[in-house]
Parts: sequence; C-alpha cells; structure tokens
Amino acid sequence: MVVGGGFGGLYTVRKLRKAPVNITLVDRRNFHLFQPLPYQVSNGGLSPADIASPLRHVFKRQRNARVVLGEAVAVDPVGRRLLLADGELAYDTLVIATGVRSDYFGHDGWEPLAPGLKSIEDAVEIRRRVLAAFEAAEREPDPARRRAWLTFVVVGGGPTGVELAGALGELAHHSMRGEFRSIDLRESRVILVEGSERVLPSFPPALSHRAQRSLARLAVEARTGTRVVGIDPEGVDLQAGGRAERLSARTVLWAAGIAGTSLGRVLHEATDCELDPIGRVIVEPDLTVPGYPELFVIGDLAHVKFRGVPLPGIAPAAIQEGKYVARVIHAARSGHANPAPFRYLDKGALATIGRFAAVAEFHGLRFWGIPAWLVWLAIHITYLIGFENRVLVLIQWTNMYFRRGRGARLITHGPPVPVDREHAAQQPPYTAPAP
Amino acid sequence: MVVGGGFGGLYTVRKLRKAPVNITLVDRRNFHLFQPLPYQVSNGGLSPADIASPLRHVFKRQRNARVVLGEAVAVDPVGRRLLLADGELAYDTLVIATGVRSDYFGHDGWEPLAPGLKSIEDAVEIRRRVLAAFEAAEREPDPARRRAWLTFVVVGGGPTGVELAGALGELAHHSMRGEFRSIDLRESRVILVEGSERVLPSFPPALSHRAQRSLARLAVEARTGTRVVGIDPEGVDLQAGGRAERLSARTVLWAAGIAGTSLGRVLHEATDCELDPIGRVIVEPDLTVPGYPELFVIGDLAHVKFRGVPLPGIAPAAIQEGKYVARVIHAARSGHANPAPFRYLDKGALATIGRFAAVAEFHGLRFWGIPAWLVWLAIHITYLIGFENRVLVLIQWTNMYFRRGRGARLITHGPPVPVDREHAAQQPPYTAPAP
Repeated sequence: MVVGGGFGGLYTVRKLRKAPVNITLVDRRNFHLFQPLPYQVSNGGLSPADIASPLRHVFKRQRNARVVLGEAVAVDPVGRRLLLADGELAYDTLVIATGVRSDYFGHDGWEPLAPGLKSIEDAVEIRRRVLAAFEAAEREPDPARRRAWLTFVVVGGGPTGVELAGALGELAHHSMRGEFRSIDLRESRVILVEGSERVLPSFPPALSHRAQRSLARLAVEARTGTRVVGIDPEGVDLQAGGRAERLSARTVLWAAGIAGTSLGRVLHEATDCELDPIGRVIVEPDLTVPGYPELFVIGDLAHVKFRGVPLPGIAPAAIQEGKYVARVIHAARSGHANPAPFRYLDKGALATIGRFAAVAEFHGLRFWGIPAWLVWLAIHITYLIGFENRVLVLIQWTNMYFRRGRGARLITHGPPVPVDREHAAQQPPYTAPAP
Repeated sequence: MVVGGGFGGLYTVRKLRKAPVNITLVDRRNFHLFQPLPYQVSNGGLSPADIASPLRHVFKRQRNARVVLGEAVAVDPVGRRLLLADGELAYDTLVIATGVRSDYFGHDGWEPLAPGLKSIEDAVEIRRRVLAAFEAAEREPDPARRRAWLTFVVVGGGPTGVELAGALGELAHHSMRGEFRSIDLRESRVILVEGSERVLPSFPPALSHRAQRSLARLAVEARTGTRVVGIDPEGVDLQAGGRAERLSARTVLWAAGIAGTSLGRVLHEATDCELDPIGRVIVEPDLTVPGYPELFVIGDLAHVKFRGVPLPGIAPAAIQEGKYVARVIHAARSGHANPAPFRYLDKGALATIGRFAAVAEFHGLRFWGIPAWLVWLAIHITYLIGFENRVLVLIQWTNMYFRRGRGARLITHGPPVPVDREHAAQQPPYTAPAP
C-alpha cells in the first residue's frame, strides 16, 4: 500500500507494475500534482489541469493497482492498519510519501496573510490575490495606497521563491503591458526576501549571482540577509542586520518554510522513530522506519542521509526513492536477496527565472541563460505525466515565452476586487478617472 | 458605458472601436466567459481558462476602451449614473448586458442541492460533485446506496440540459471505462427530466427525436412530460401525468429555469419599464428602454420581439444586438441618421449530444449526426475569443472525441469524497474490498 500520489508514490506504484503484488494507492486528492509548476498557475501561465493528472487515468491499465480516495490520519504499525478519516485499510507493506506542507516558523497567524504554494487551491488563491491587487490599484486614486497594491513580497529565496518572483516580474512588466489605463505598471515592485546572504543558497555562489542578475532584469529586488519579522494586511516588517524596515505591501506570498506532513509525527508516536527539526522521518539506509522492515518513508517526508548529508526535497530524489523501494518490495516478494542500500544519483540542480533564463548545475558543470533554460524546458516537459498535458503546456509556453501572453489570468473563487471597507468608508465613492 | 462582458457587451465594445467615443466596460469578473461551453468544464473535458478570456487582454489594443472591475447594483437614469457596490460611474449612454441567472421557480432551497451552470465556479462545483460521486460509489459497499451515487439527474431538456446529460453519459460510459476496480460503470444512470413532451422543445420535432436517439445511445434516459416536484439530498420527486415517482440520486444538476439578473428589476423600478414573466426587460425596436433613448438593454436580459415572437437567449442574438447598438451609438455621435429598427437574422439552432452527434437547423435545412457535429465544432471554435483558446480547445477535443480522454478531471475546491456522516456512524469503518 502506498500513501500519497506525488512523485515518490507514483513511481513506486509504476515500478511495481510487473511485480506479483496488489497495490492500493491512497490519496486525499484524485490527481497527481506536478509539484514543480504550481507557481505557473499562480501567475496565469498555465491551468490547474495542465499540471495535474487524474490518478485513476494514470493507473487505468495497471491492473495490479487500485486507487482509493481517502485522508490517511494514522498508522497502526503493529496491527498493520492505515487509519483514514472515515475508515481503515489493512496492509502488508506500507510506503508513506505524503510530502511536506508550508510552515510559518511558529507564526501560524501569517498563513492567511501569506499563502504558500503547495496545492492547486493555493495556486488559484495566489493568482486571485495577485490579479485582484492590480485591479484594486487601477481603481485606487491615492498614490501611496496604489503603490501598496502594486508591491508584491515573496518570502524565501530558494528555487520556489526565485521562480515565483521571476514570474511575477514578467507578469507585471511584460505580460500585462498596455492592458491598464490608470496605473503605470512600471511602478510595480516585486521584492524577494531571503534570510541568508544570497538567493538560491543551496546552489554554488556563482549561480546565485547569475540568478540575482536575471531577477534584476525583471525588476525583482532581492533583499538578501533579511528576515521577515512581521506580516499584517498592510505590509511586512523586515530586519536586516540591526536595521528594521517597514514595507507597505498588500500581497505577500510564502515560499520560505516547509515541514513534514502530519503522518511524520504520527509515525514518531507509533514507532518512536526519530524526526529531524522540520518533522521529517529519519529513515534507515533502505528507507524503512527503524525496526519496521515493511514500513517505508520516501520523498520529501523522508530524511535520507547520503554521504553524510540529507537529500534535498526535490523530484529526482523522490523518484529515485520510489523506484528503489519498488525494487526492494519486488525482491522480497520474489524471494530474491534484498538490494544494496539506497544510493542517490545526484542529477544536479536547476532553477528558472522567467523566460530564457535559468541556472543549472550538472555533475559539476555550471551553466545559465538560454542553455540552462532549454534544459529546464526539456526536463519539465519530459517528467510531466500524460501526453496531453505535455502538448498543452508546450503550447502555452510558446505563447508565454514568445508572445508574452498568459491566457489563464482568471480571478475565480473569491472577490475580484478586494474591497477595502475601512478605507472606502472614509473615501468619496469610486468614480472612474476622466477617459 | 457597457455593463457585462458576455457576448452582447463584448461585441458592442468591439464594434465601437473606430467610433469617436470613450467606452468603459464594467464587469464583476475579469474575463469574458464563452457561455456555450461551461458544461464541458463540468465533465472534465476543458479547463476554465480554455473558455474564458481576460477582458483586459481582449481590449488591450482598443485604445478607446477601458475595463473597470465592479459590481453594478443600480442605475440612476435621470442623473445618468451607474451605481456600483462600492462606488459610482457617470455615463452618457448605457448598454446593459448582464444576462440571466439560474432560477428555481420559487424553490430557492433547491439551489444548493442542484447547482446550475452559469459561472466558472458553478462548473467547477458540478465537476467536483460528479467526480466525487463516482469516488463515493467506489467505496460504498451497500448496493442501493451505491446506485444512488451512480444516478445523475439533469433537470431541464433544453440545449444546456441535453448537452450536459450527453457529456455525463460519455464520461460514465466511455471516458472513465476501466478506471475503477469496485464499481461497474455500466450501472451508472443519467436521467434527463423535461416538463414538455420532447427534449429540445424549441427545435423541430424531428430533431428532438434525433436528439433523443443520440442520448439513448449514451445510456441517457430522457423522461419527457415529467416535472420535478421535490429535491432533497437523497434524490428527487417526479410527477408524470398523475403518477408520482421517487428517484434515489445523490447528484442533481439544474438546467431548467433562468431569470433576468437583478439589473432588470432595478431598471423596472427606476424607469417603470415593463418586464416579462422571467424578469427580462421588454425593449423598444431599437433596443432602448422606453422613454430613455440613451439606455439600451441587450443579450439574454433583453426581451426583444421580432416578427411577433421574443428572440431566444442565445449567443447569435446577443452578438447581433451588440453590433446593432454599436451602430446606433456610432451614428448618433457622428450626426448620421438613426439606423432602422433592429432586425434579427435567424442563423438557426444547434445542439450537440456527445461525440460525433448533434442536431442543427439552418434556414429551414435540418441535419444531424456527424455533419451537424462538424458544424457545431466549426462554429464553436470560430466564436471562441482568442487564438490560444482555440488551439487549446481543439487539442483537448481531439483527445476527447478521438481518444475518449478527459484530462481536466480534477476534484478541487471541496471535499474529494462526500462523507456521509449519518450513514458512516451506522456502518463498520471503510475497508477496501480484497484486491
């Protein structure tokens, strides 16, 4: 049984397609989400369905696999039962791949003010907030308040934050150019806040530097060495060195902290396994939970040490872990010897910053600009699940990168213009400026 | 000033692009919705963004047009002001094109039980309910309850109801075939309830008959001469002739009644204009409100009599009315004589029933099957707004009609499996059937 239909879970099930086993894949959503791309939904470049594949369709022809929709809430490792919110399932072998969620470093009150980017609904909500902020600015006569609507803060300078900030810069300065009549989009600011001394801190310094230059070309201001100490509906409080700064901004997005999903803590309580400080399960070299050879944790929820350092929470690691676990299970069921401990093949690191710009490192080779961007394009198209999704994404990328178009800019599932009740009460009613 | 960015409003603004006027288009949404296709979102065939175009993008190059996001709530025809929920706008000429909404014949309690299909959110919600019903059925051990999850009732046998029922039939009997492990999809039923004696009552009887045969091939049961007298969470109560019948069905969809949006009533109160029984504004032959030559109502909200009968609420009528009003306004501003009264060019009627099947009537010519379906395809692709949307829709239709695929089958913005609390409490916890 596999819990979670992300990269780890999906590749575990796929790799077991010829094994003499019956697989149940449990997920609370009915689709696999291609986690590297929700940020492109959040800026209107792609539609949710372009980066999601219905799990039943993915496993339609794999007759030894069944999909069950349900929310896993606990594990009974002795009785070998997975407890759902509304039922339970018995298992022989359990692979947990439920990933991570956004974490606000103990400031849970920040969550509604600065949404993260973990689900389709998150991406649609960020899209709504960003587009509605421009609409509010178009209607705002007061210059200071207009600037606050046109200021976007992205917290966290890792790959997600960099990609999100770059995409917002493109949206404001290129895709929407000429579409508004009252505001000057060049007034809009995207500010990327990163606590460490450079963006993409997990990359080599030379590539961080390249990325920062690409961001600057999209008018993204990178504030490195800066921490966010407060978020409220009107803006953020920053701290850089000893200096405090206040930024008026009506839109704040979160790409900073992550923490293991709740099954990590559940496992800790049930098996006494160790968790790392962000709640990931520290697993054995064969990716099992210590003392439970039939209980695996893989993907972002697993803390896997390889050559002394924990693996990053990226798709290639999850895919390799999923395939490895499938081999272990297959070997055990076929009576073969257990495979050697898990070995990670480092495929490098990759981040994109708007059109024709990316930074990449492969096996010590570093490159950037258009070559890195083409590699990024090829890899993302290849790993997207489903032929139709690939075609749809390619077409929209052609439109986006060559014609600067973004067709999916819909404000849905919430108010189209954020009405500022308190402010509105003190203001004369809205009247359009003379045409 | 134009209120509403549907077909009527959009074509009014477009047609005025060379007129010496400044146009403000007011809409509460930031996109034009291609109203003939939300039903294809509701069954996972297309994504919301495929059938919606951001209004700012549509009018980017039309320099005499501006887009204002706002909800129009009232009109002051003497002071020539349009009142918004949070402000007001002055106008010289006002074109109201806010369309219709779903209406439940006084049973407002039915709305949450049987959603209509007027907005993107409606379509996403119907998609969620339909897909979640199959998921609930897959997990339901009790045969009677399973059948209720697999029974779908569409109320209303006009073009929308027929297209929706046909698409549901295809989804259940073709697109999802082989994807479930516990349920037999052939058990699923789609029941189309129509009060009059045949489906598509506005079409010639021969075409209604053809449509009914096409529906039957998709296992859609058409219950004509039947009225819905009750809807509750467990099913519907029907009345046919003198006989009452109870249908257990967990998913009920509404394609029956429509009524004019609230600006119709507002106009009636402000100008004493006449409304028809479903709240549409009865306009003069030049589409103005009686006594107010600068106040037009067009599209679905207008009751336009032509040769003694009111025009149907379809896109070609709205488009022709929009273009006509633009000509009237242009003539007035250029000092030309007023054009002749509005004349409607009847382009016929068209409805599709799943793949390769449609019925059509053009200028007295009746056809059906593949020829009608090809005409349907060509017209819908032509009138979709935006090149990218056309390409994306064509690709997904290729996948849908030739490979029976439906890639946008995502359950979002709500629970993925409807948990039946009351029932669950009496049941042993859910366990998957033995694989």
